[in-house]
Amino acid sequence: MSSPSSILRRALLGRPVASSAHDAPRLGRWRALQATSSNALSSLAYAPDEIILTLVAAGGATLWLGPFVGWAVVAVMVLTVLAFRAAVVAVPQGGIHRMARTKLGPRSGVLAAAALLLDFVFTAAVSVAAFAHHLSVLVPAVDGLTWLVAGAALVLVLLSALRGDAGRGRLIPVVVTAFVVLLAALVAVGLWQDGQGRLAAASTAGLTVADAGLGSAGGLATALLALRAFSAGSVLLTGVEVPLSATHRMARPAVRTVRWVLAVLALVVGALTVGVMHLAQRTGAVVALDPAALRHPDGTPLAPGEEPGPVLGQLADAVFGAGSPGATAVIAVTCLLLLVAARGSFHSFPALASRLAAEGYLPRQLRVRGDRLVHTWGVLALGAGTLLLLAVFRARTALLVQLYVIGVLLAFTLALIGMVRLWRGKLAHTPGVRARASVRLRYLVTALGLAVTGLAAVVVLVTRFRQGAWVALLAILFGALVMGRIRRHYRAVEAELAPDPQDDARALPSRVHVVVVVSTLNRPALRALAYARATRPSSLEAVVVDTDRQATERVVEDFARAGLPVPLTVVAAPYRDTVVPLVRHVRSRRSRSPRDLVMVFLPEYVVRPGWRTLLHNRTATRQTRRLQREAGVMVGSVPWQIHEGDPRTGDRTPPDAVGHTRRGPRDSAP
Amino acid sequence: MSSPSSILRRALLGRPVASSAHDAPRLGRWRALQATSSNALSSLAYAPDEIILTLVAAGGATLWLGPFVGWAVVAVMVLTVLAFRAAVVAVPQGGIHRMARTKLGPRSGVLAAAALLLDFVFTAAVSVAAFAHHLSVLVPAVDGLTWLVAGAALVLVLLSALRGDAGRGRLIPVVVTAFVVLLAALVAVGLWQDGQGRLAAASTAGLTVADAGLGSAGGLATALLALRAFSAGSVLLTGVEVPLSATHRMARPAVRTVRWVLAVLALVVGALTVGVMHLAQRTGAVVALDPAALRHPDGTPLAPGEEPGPVLGQLADAVFGAGSPGATAVIAVTCLLLLVAARGSFHSFPALASRLAAEGYLPRQLRVRGDRLVHTWGVLALGAGTLLLLAVFRARTALLVQLYVIGVLLAFTLALIGMVRLWRGKLAHTPGVRARASVRLRYLVTALGLAVTGLAAVVVLVTRFRQGAWVALLAILFGALVMGRIRRHYRAVEAELAPDPQDDARALPSRVHVVVVVSTLNRPALRALAYARATRPSSLEAVVVDTDRQATERVVEDFARAGLPVPLTVVAAPYRDTVVPLVRHVRSRRSRSPRDLVMVFLPEYVVRPGWRTLLHNRTATRQTRRLQREAGVMVGSVPWQIHEGDPRTGDRTPPDAVGHTRRGPRDSAP
Repeated sequence: MSSPSSILRRALLGRPVASSAHDAPRLGRWRALQATSSNALSSLAYAPDEIILTLVAAGGATLWLGPFVGWAVVAVMVLTVLAFRAAVVAVPQGGIHRMARTKLGPRSGVLAAAALLLDFVFTAAVSVAAFAHHLSVLVPAVDGLTWLVAGAALVLVLLSALRGDAGRGRLIPVVVTAFVVLLAALVAVGLWQDGQGRLAAASTAGLTVADAGLGSAGGLATALLALRAFSAGSVLLTGVEVPLSATHRMARPAVRTVRWVLAVLALVVGALTVGVMHLAQRTGAVVALDPAALRHPDGTPLAPGEEPGPVLGQLADAVFGAGSPGATAVIAVTCLLLLVAARGSFHSFPALASRLAAEGYLPRQLRVRGDRLVHTWGVLALGAGTLLLLAVFRARTALLVQLYVIGVLLAFTLALIGMVRLWRGKLAHTPGVRARASVRLRYLVTALGLAVTGLAAVVVLVTRFRQGAWVALLAILFGALVMGRIRRHYRAVEAELAPDPQDDARALPSRVHVVVVVSTLNRPALRALAYARATRPSSLEAVVVDTDRQATERVVEDFARAGLPVPLTVVAAPYRDTVVPLVRHVRSRRSRSPRDLVMVFLPEYVVRPGWRTLLHNRTATRQTRRLQREAGVMVGSVPWQIHEGDPRTGDRTPPDAVGHTRRGPRDSAP
Repeated sequence: MSSPSSILRRALLGRPVASSAHDAPRLGRWRALQATSSNALSSLAYAPDEIILTLVAAGGATLWLGPFVGWAVVAVMVLTVLAFRAAVVAVPQGGIHRMARTKLGPRSGVLAAAALLLDFVFTAAVSVAAFAHHLSVLVPAVDGLTWLVAGAALVLVLLSALRGDAGRGRLIPVVVTAFVVLLAALVAVGLWQDGQGRLAAASTAGLTVADAGLGSAGGLATALLALRAFSAGSVLLTGVEVPLSATHRMARPAVRTVRWVLAVLALVVGALTVGVMHLAQRTGAVVALDPAALRHPDGTPLAPGEEPGPVLGQLADAVFGAGSPGATAVIAVTCLLLLVAARGSFHSFPALASRLAAEGYLPRQLRVRGDRLVHTWGVLALGAGTLLLLAVFRARTALLVQLYVIGVLLAFTLALIGMVRLWRGKLAHTPGVRARASVRLRYLVTALGLAVTGLAAVVVLVTRFRQGAWVALLAILFGALVMGRIRRHYRAVEAELAPDPQDDARALPSRVHVVVVVSTLNRPALRALAYARATRPSSLEAVVVDTDRQATERVVEDFARAGLPVPLTVVAAPYRDTVVPLVRHVRSRRSRSPRDLVMVFLPEYVVRPGWRTLLHNRTATRQTRRLQREAGVMVGSVPWQIHEGDPRTGDRTPPDAVGHTRRGPRDSAP
């Protein structure tokens, strides 16, 4: 089995892992936090950028709004997490999808699931795109190659995902911890410098957009701008739901662990976000969707190479000094964290897809675990989806984010609607004052969470509708529709295939007619005839489809000469089609008595390596496919392994081993 | 059968044609000439251009060489045709390929065939590219869309080719005749005007190339230039061999008919070429590979829209007046002729490919005639090759021609070497003075033809080597190599499959073990078990591959409950692979006695329409493919047609018709 491809496979993906390795020990609090927080933390690498570039696009005079928008986003995030912390008590397993389904029914569950699946694809795409963006700060040589770097990162992450958890080791916890520590240090030092009045300005401070529509317009325009910035920044919410779907891997009591993880995660992400937004405002850092529109205070455009880098990079340069070890470390660990976040999507997506497949909403292949215990099809599907997004959006983070947020907010809103209903129901049925007080608190927290996520969803939908939110919405609706249809199909098939007591499928056919299709009377055909006779059928005939007069005559002659105890039927094919006349003949054989079974034996050559198969008529394949659509017909393939060519095949499978034993070296002695 | 796709197919390609329609009446002299001359005639639309642009690239001072180069090319063509006229007496069937093979052996035959196949691809590509070029004279709007127009023309020609000869009608003879008549009129009127001193100058007369390397250099450089122009012009030779391969379609005595056709064809093409080259020189018509390099006599570059059109168009404008009905007619009929020539390739290529496939040099599919009696695969292969050439060369005639000629000249040279040997052999064995004189004349004519084609081949190879002749040469050699390997493969397979008297393939296996693979004990599995029992095997077992503990336990329980008289074996699959453990089990079944046969029955769902198949595990397909590589194993597919979805399928093939008859309306009455 060690063909070159399987050696390569082993080298890249490792040895197969037995199913018994599936039951890994559960994760403690800190390990659980580290394992599930990369998605939420990675938002810090692009959420501030999104807020600032929205404000800058309006001229830059409104940059002072930045910290306020940051506070608003963090507030929504914290309220949502509080609602989740309440929800997990009632629905400890299954995450957002299950929450939405519990009270709103399968349709809403599927809608939330579709939104989350799309969200995971966007997370992977945004993460590798942002990775390429940040890497270009460290390695200026890759600056123009965003698309290439993002693609390479995707391949890397994909390979790691195909290797599975077995090879993960301790890299991820280290990266996550280092990111949090470094970012905390950045914020702390920066704010301390600011307090001392020693905070340096960002290299981009003072840049403005040439001809912004807004300038210093009125209050309504400013409010609208703040809403737009808020909707861009709400990308920060993505990923806070990840711990919810990992409770089954957390140390018992799992609910308590996950509640702790959620709280700490919200605290860390919230504090860091507020800190970063404040620092950004104080240093005057500027980023822009289109750097060519930026102008120096004196009106001159940017020189080549002066394009602003990501916000975290600008802050690290301002606080630690450009090119200092500290600044380099911040960007390097951000790059790593973005890869870890993409890798996280390659865990979350296949897991959710597999759960949906188990319920019949997605193709069953998504449930299959490959030889590394990984949901191979899920990983590959996500890889393909991510590649598509990267290609469509040319790996530009800012464009990707436009479509990103609506999916998460929709899923959160659906889940929290379900939870509000659940708590309201519980409230009505909970006796006792203290218990009722606890439930009422949860009800209120959930309602508040729902109010803010719902509001955020409306804001995003309204302010981003034309920039692509409608595409994401359509994609989610379409995905939910398809998932519903898939489930209907599986249901119908299952119902049809279920055996019932008076089932006729168990009844033996009363008679078996065997038809052997012969195109040349060569050894494969002779073997097929022998095999067919070995089944001792009620009736047996050989059939030749007459597409070529000369060839048919030769078969008829050979057949007569061979003296086989089998009648030969010539089926006319005036239009040279080998399939339809054969099917008609087989059908006519059966229609004489519908309780009969027709077995069609087709001699087939098996040729390897692959390219040689192009040299042989695929007639048998086409005949098989068509005959399989006939009722009461069974198709038997009698393979003949062509020896020539691949010595490996030849050694293992002697082509003529049936009917005689291979002669040993004894026979070849003189 | 009238699905939307089959209705579209009928509309585009017409109804199926019975094999009996194959024997069409033979063509008389004029019909044969019209049917086989389009390829040779179409060279008139680009050979003059090629000669002139080669001369112009050297500065334009050597344009006076044009008519002489024309005469030289025509002389080579006429001598080659004379040699062919002699050859056809000895080798009346099979054309160039057969001529080369007769005395030089199969290798040279294959080389000539490969060269001719490549030549046909180039003919198709050059013709549609030249069509687009000429059409832009009539319809200036398509000027920048060469690639698009050429592609559209290719699709049109391809569709016509797939319709086959049945739909051809009388369009081709009319186009060919009209082209010859109009071109003869153009030349005659032009020369008469010239005699009267009233011939107008071409609109491009006097244009020169900005900084040509040669200018008015010495004699050696002029001679080299003349050779380069000759090799460009020798594209005129392509197509004169077409009548040779159509003798079986010509009126008897076929040899006399084809000799007449060859003579008239050479005469017509030769006279028209000489006339056109004279006219071009007299009117001073200029064309250039790169119009941007052209300059007016006063040194100014061309204005947009002043780029020179094709030579025939310029001459027609000069003789009949720009925009006159005569000039328009010349270009229009040239466009049509180019389409007819491309269509001709779509006849020649599949015919030659089919002949080579019959000899085992190409995949057998190329012999298959589709339902319109067309060699569908050959037509599609040529279409793909042409599209590739158009894409690589961006549909620019002048670039395509660079690689075009070498194939024809190589094939002609090989054929004439063979013919020289043949006539020399005949000369030695021919008794009688008069007969010897006739053979000697043919020998001399052939030798002369060989000398000039060989010389032309050398000239082309030397002067065009770096512009791409080496690519064409490599492609031909590679093609011949592949064809040789294909034949070796077919030979080896044939030898292996040939039955011999003490053949063991005829021996009945001593015992038949049947293995039924079950993954769920549903109705398809029950049916597979029933069918397996109906074959009354020596032993029968059901097998479940244990990839999922719960599912396996369910099957074991269901099996016990069903009370089937069949033992159930559980095959361990610790790595969740469903294929290898099954194959191992099957192999172990057989190795106990190698004279045994193992039949593996696989229940398969047949789902339609196609996209639904994505929703079902393709496990059975993968198991089948792998089991077919095992010796002494037969694979039986027990299909179950899933009813749901496509009502058409449901009506025709009741999914549960075996085992009981369908209830009629009688049963549903109250």
